[in-house]
Amino acid sequence: MNNEQLLDLVNQMTLEEKTAQLLQLTANFYEGTNVEGQITGPMEEMGITEQSVDASGSILGLSGAQAIIDVQQAYLKKSRLGIPLLFMADVVHGFKTIFPIPLAIGCSWDTELAEKSAEIAARESAVSGLHVTFAPMVDLVRDPRWGRVMETTGEDPYLNSLFSAAFVRGYQGDSLKDEPDRLAACVKHFAAYGAAEGGRDYNTVDMSERNLREYYLPAYKAALDAGVEMVMASFNTVEGIPASGNEKLMRDILRDEWGFDGVLISDWASIREMIAHGAAEDDREAAYRAIRAGVDIEMMTPCYVHHLPELIKNGEVEEKLIDEAVLRILQLKEKLGLFENPLRAADPEREREIVFSKEHRQVSYELATKSAVLLKNDNHVLPLKPEANVALIGPFAQSEDILGWWSCEGVKEDAVKLGTALQERITAGKVHMAQGSNVHTITAEQIAEALEVASKADLIVLALGEDSEMSGEGGSRTDIRLPAAQLELIKQLKAAGKPIASVIFNGRPLDLHGVFEESDAVLEAWFPGSEGGAAIADVLTGVVNPSARLTMSFPQSVGQIPVYYNHFNTGRPLNPQKTEERYVSKYIDSPNDPLLPFGFGLSYTSFEYDDMEVSSHEMTADQPLTIQVRVTNAGERAGVETVQLYVRDVTGEVVRPMRELKGYVKLSLAPGESGTATFTLNEEQLRYHHSDLSHRSDKGTFHIFVGPNSRDTLESTFKLV
Amino acid sequence: MNNEQLLDLVNQMTLEEKTAQLLQLTANFYEGTNVEGQITGPMEEMGITEQSVDASGSILGLSGAQAIIDVQQAYLKKSRLGIPLLFMADVVHGFKTIFPIPLAIGCSWDTELAEKSAEIAARESAVSGLHVTFAPMVDLVRDPRWGRVMETTGEDPYLNSLFSAAFVRGYQGDSLKDEPDRLAACVKHFAAYGAAEGGRDYNTVDMSERNLREYYLPAYKAALDAGVEMVMASFNTVEGIPASGNEKLMRDILRDEWGFDGVLISDWASIREMIAHGAAEDDREAAYRAIRAGVDIEMMTPCYVHHLPELIKNGEVEEKLIDEAVLRILQLKEKLGLFENPLRAADPEREREIVFSKEHRQVSYELATKSAVLLKNDNHVLPLKPEANVALIGPFAQSEDILGWWSCEGVKEDAVKLGTALQERITAGKVHMAQGSNVHTITAEQIAEALEVASKADLIVLALGEDSEMSGEGGSRTDIRLPAAQLELIKQLKAAGKPIASVIFNGRPLDLHGVFEESDAVLEAWFPGSEGGAAIADVLTGVVNPSARLTMSFPQSVGQIPVYYNHFNTGRPLNPQKTEERYVSKYIDSPNDPLLPFGFGLSYTSFEYDDMEVSSHEMTADQPLTIQVRVTNAGERAGVETVQLYVRDVTGEVVRPMRELKGYVKLSLAPGESGTATFTLNEEQLRYHHSDLSHRSDKGTFHIFVGPNSRDTLESTFKLV
Repeated sequence: MNNEQLLDLVNQMTLEEKTAQLLQLTANFYEGTNVEGQITGPMEEMGITEQSVDASGSILGLSGAQAIIDVQQAYLKKSRLGIPLLFMADVVHGFKTIFPIPLAIGCSWDTELAEKSAEIAARESAVSGLHVTFAPMVDLVRDPRWGRVMETTGEDPYLNSLFSAAFVRGYQGDSLKDEPDRLAACVKHFAAYGAAEGGRDYNTVDMSERNLREYYLPAYKAALDAGVEMVMASFNTVEGIPASGNEKLMRDILRDEWGFDGVLISDWASIREMIAHGAAEDDREAAYRAIRAGVDIEMMTPCYVHHLPELIKNGEVEEKLIDEAVLRILQLKEKLGLFENPLRAADPEREREIVFSKEHRQVSYELATKSAVLLKNDNHVLPLKPEANVALIGPFAQSEDILGWWSCEGVKEDAVKLGTALQERITAGKVHMAQGSNVHTITAEQIAEALEVASKADLIVLALGEDSEMSGEGGSRTDIRLPAAQLELIKQLKAAGKPIASVIFNGRPLDLHGVFEESDAVLEAWFPGSEGGAAIADVLTGVVNPSARLTMSFPQSVGQIPVYYNHFNTGRPLNPQKTEERYVSKYIDSPNDPLLPFGFGLSYTSFEYDDMEVSSHEMTADQPLTIQVRVTNAGERAGVETVQLYVRDVTGEVVRPMRELKGYVKLSLAPGESGTATFTLNEEQLRYHHSDLSHRSDKGTFHIFVGPNSRDTLESTFKLV
Repeated sequence: MNNEQLLDLVNQMTLEEKTAQLLQLTANFYEGTNVEGQITGPMEEMGITEQSVDASGSILGLSGAQAIIDVQQAYLKKSRLGIPLLFMADVVHGFKTIFPIPLAIGCSWDTELAEKSAEIAARESAVSGLHVTFAPMVDLVRDPRWGRVMETTGEDPYLNSLFSAAFVRGYQGDSLKDEPDRLAACVKHFAAYGAAEGGRDYNTVDMSERNLREYYLPAYKAALDAGVEMVMASFNTVEGIPASGNEKLMRDILRDEWGFDGVLISDWASIREMIAHGAAEDDREAAYRAIRAGVDIEMMTPCYVHHLPELIKNGEVEEKLIDEAVLRILQLKEKLGLFENPLRAADPEREREIVFSKEHRQVSYELATKSAVLLKNDNHVLPLKPEANVALIGPFAQSEDILGWWSCEGVKEDAVKLGTALQERITAGKVHMAQGSNVHTITAEQIAEALEVASKADLIVLALGEDSEMSGEGGSRTDIRLPAAQLELIKQLKAAGKPIASVIFNGRPLDLHGVFEESDAVLEAWFPGSEGGAAIADVLTGVVNPSARLTMSFPQSVGQIPVYYNHFNTGRPLNPQKTEERYVSKYIDSPNDPLLPFGFGLSYTSFEYDDMEVSSHEMTADQPLTIQVRVTNAGERAGVETVQLYVRDVTGEVVRPMRELKGYVKLSLAPGESGTATFTLNEEQLRYHHSDLSHRSDKGTFHIFVGPNSRDTLESTFKLV
């Protein structure tokens, strides 16, 4: 249907049909299924009529080709105008083939593979009947207490923007109509949900508009620029007004300024939750604020369907607003080809073939190997020597709980366990396993067994971590250390006097005190997904040389939060040579720097940087700079180095960060080989939001930094003239 | 001199004399003294000429009547126009008679006594030659990691505003000219310094303008309304621009919107520090930004004196700006009567009589008794029984380090120590003392001695705390527990099986885990000042019944920060009856509520609340409500109860806090006596900053809460119509 036909269709709809089109419910409201929706919020009795359900526009949380075919067909039978349902779900890091958590994917700095993972997730979802995924989540996060930090790609607006666009491309492809194996993407959560106060989920967000625009908004904008079809409003307040009813955010910025004409959806119950927030007196006012702010679809609460007809009839809300919302939903259905083929790619047979295929799992494996960050490796403890006797100890030695939160149709039992994978890779009888402790508890028997197993080995691999419920939505922690039981385990094993390589499975940057010092090597495995054990085993044994880099700083302790690389200098920066000075910006009991900085990650080889060359010491608006650095693999293994470019605008009308990532280059180098990392840098990349919110550059001095992370860099300087 | 004469004087000054008038240095630059200034910031070579010093307008950090007389006289001998110097200093909580730290004074909820303390500080300072104090500090703070939290009165904008005005009245009196024993006050730090990120001193501040205006600005405005003569700019950035160069903050809000026409001073070196911030390329640009923003006096850096003449000559800065700044300084000198009497109250003889007088110390004693907060008192462990054998143990048992940071001319050795005071109050031989541990370390011998002493007693009084360097400027901590040595001490003493009453001397809300549960009683003594030991001993022995209330929440742990009482509800508030629900705003490992809420404090008696009456269930703009609650002393001692009134605006255009303090009443009740707390509440008190920053009320439902703290309250409701 062309747009005129869609408009005709809107005009044929009754007011009740139109408002019902804006309603989204879980599957359990529908005929043809009795699947329970995944309930992610306090939900009271809905009071939804059968009539509303029968005319509703979309459904969430249902999957499986046959189930969706059944519901769609039953629905269409009753539909007066034959408008098909949209099926949406949270496909966040894979459908059934589960990829590493997004925070881990971020650490790959590999946007191509990230895109590929989204394409695969889309394919598995599409053949299973889905049309839309509530992804990517691109919230910038500086607080590892927040449980949903596992869903982000990190603390940097530039890198988040690259991943945001990559995920959108991967989900959506070039054409939703021509490529039925793709999904429409829904970028979330607009906006700034990642800045929840105290890292407590759903908590208040407050920041200046400058801060919002400069750091938090870019990754959403990048999704829009990549053509994302949908945007989801966040749960939090922005400048004191819940996002779902925030006209400035939704109507002024998203729709008017950015020109977004796709579908804007609430988060689960977030329209009605305006009442709890204290921004709406009742459902009626919640509906009023949300539709005026520009929210098209109301997820899981009935404010629209119960009150919009009345609000329109008495003139409080213009019917035009509803018509626009309905039209956008119909346009999305048209783009997905649903009017022609309401079942789209749903196909039980292809579902059985494609979903969790070997080929898909291979990509998950590859991404997991590229997401594991080697944080420490004293004395080349890793990779494991082929002849070594290895004691694999810890609650994650044989754990299936390595998919992480939001693992959709992923099944823990399908995950490759570390112990199993390691045994397959190491000579029979050379891997000795013990659980050592549970995630949260430890017994004397477990310790005794662990020590016994350790006594047989040359080296201890300690598999530690958080269970998946310790992060994810609703999974915020005030204490971000490993559970005491596991710290006790490492303390006990330390006494065995053997080298310890710790592998950590988890969903957030941790306070690693009690692990980092005590271990000779530390590998951050994150939640690595379906092939996690295989990938980590291959990294441990050196089949794969690790190359990932942190995209969030690891704090010294929870008391240091927030700590992030692109901070300001302050007026009284700490002089590292004079840490005893009192009247400087510091703590009296902690360094300012994180334990591990943004961009950090080791390899089994080592790289040397030299010969930094900048094409000119002046940049003009139409004359970009070229920056080159020679990187040499100084070790004895082939490896991939992620060479990073940072810039500091030394003086701005508004203060600029100490360092900002402006680009990176991956070099794959054989032992002894040198390569050149080449960057271009132009005036546009130096723009920022001034006090009047205009986005422009300032003339003056800039510093350039190139290195393997945000801390250890070569430095040069230029002037923008 | 009248204003015309002052203007004439400005017109007689050369450009160099005018810019020098804006310069403030420490005493060591001046003839007649070789006192070292108190250096509170990284300061490079100044490059100040003798000529500038000889024409400079003010001096900081010098005190002592004779010293100031000498400098003033030497200065005036050289002064071409006979303009006297202004003498300023940080008189924060007393001059030589040291009062409890401001955070403790806040806990008294006694603005009259606070005013009295400022009056005494002013008198001691004035006879010692000072004209201006850099006080009150009224920064709202929600982060106890920040060292300067000891200087604030707490987390509530209303209470901070009351204290702000009280301190200004106390310092300034009714007329600086007629009352030479008063000082001009300088409210600081404008603005929002208390929101330093991560609680790290001097760190970045970022918040929405709404948040700034609603919570952070009111206490500064209250000082202005009380007639404060000076304002000090803060070190931090506001919306990315350092306060000292922030035109929106200083020129637009402070000067134009609020009409402040007094003297605006930088903080120590904060104009030049704009270079380190990255908001000025050099001294010249720093001077340019600061003078345009409206800063009159530059403290301790020479940007103005070196660059303003040139900036004016080449037309970049209007001479009018400097003329206005100079005029404001001369006006202040005139108000202080300095043109008539440049020595003002400076008088070595009166100095000897008045400073640290018995009468002054008595007020300090009284304020300390009213500032100590009883946090726990199981089984009426306190007050100490007259006949009891008491073991007084801990690093603060006989510590002089109880004045706290910013104690000006206060001398630790003059402070009354707890042990000494307790021995004077308890039958000879019944107080057994041991140090138990040092502040940061503990030895086996100390433990053995402590256990030995404990064995002789019926009850252990454990005097614990932070030394004064652990808070104050530059005293931020990431770990806000007591030092491990002291936690070890309490653990060891717990084994003695005797009741423990812990008294804590410190400068911030602490994480009390390891103390609170382990103690039967806990008394928060803060840094109680010169008479601290006497005051705390009288509270412990029941001579005084404690009545103070916390003005900052005590968090469960550092990982819970920020935690403050006037937070938002969020869209998914935790239901206390269903704490196991996952998808609500909570931590999986901690309560949301603080350990001890705002307003909390116990008494040796107990109070019961009933018969809450509200005059109407509707309020109109011209019809305030009257709210009455009956309070009964249900215990066996006379006591003072601070009855608190909170309001919640249930639905706002912008989200309103769960509770906001709107008033309080102190009732002094004999055992068995009942009294009535009466509050009036009007429409003006319900106004807040809307999304367009207009300050007005919303019609609708409000909840009223009355109780002994922000948590345990009676409740009613009304509508604003």
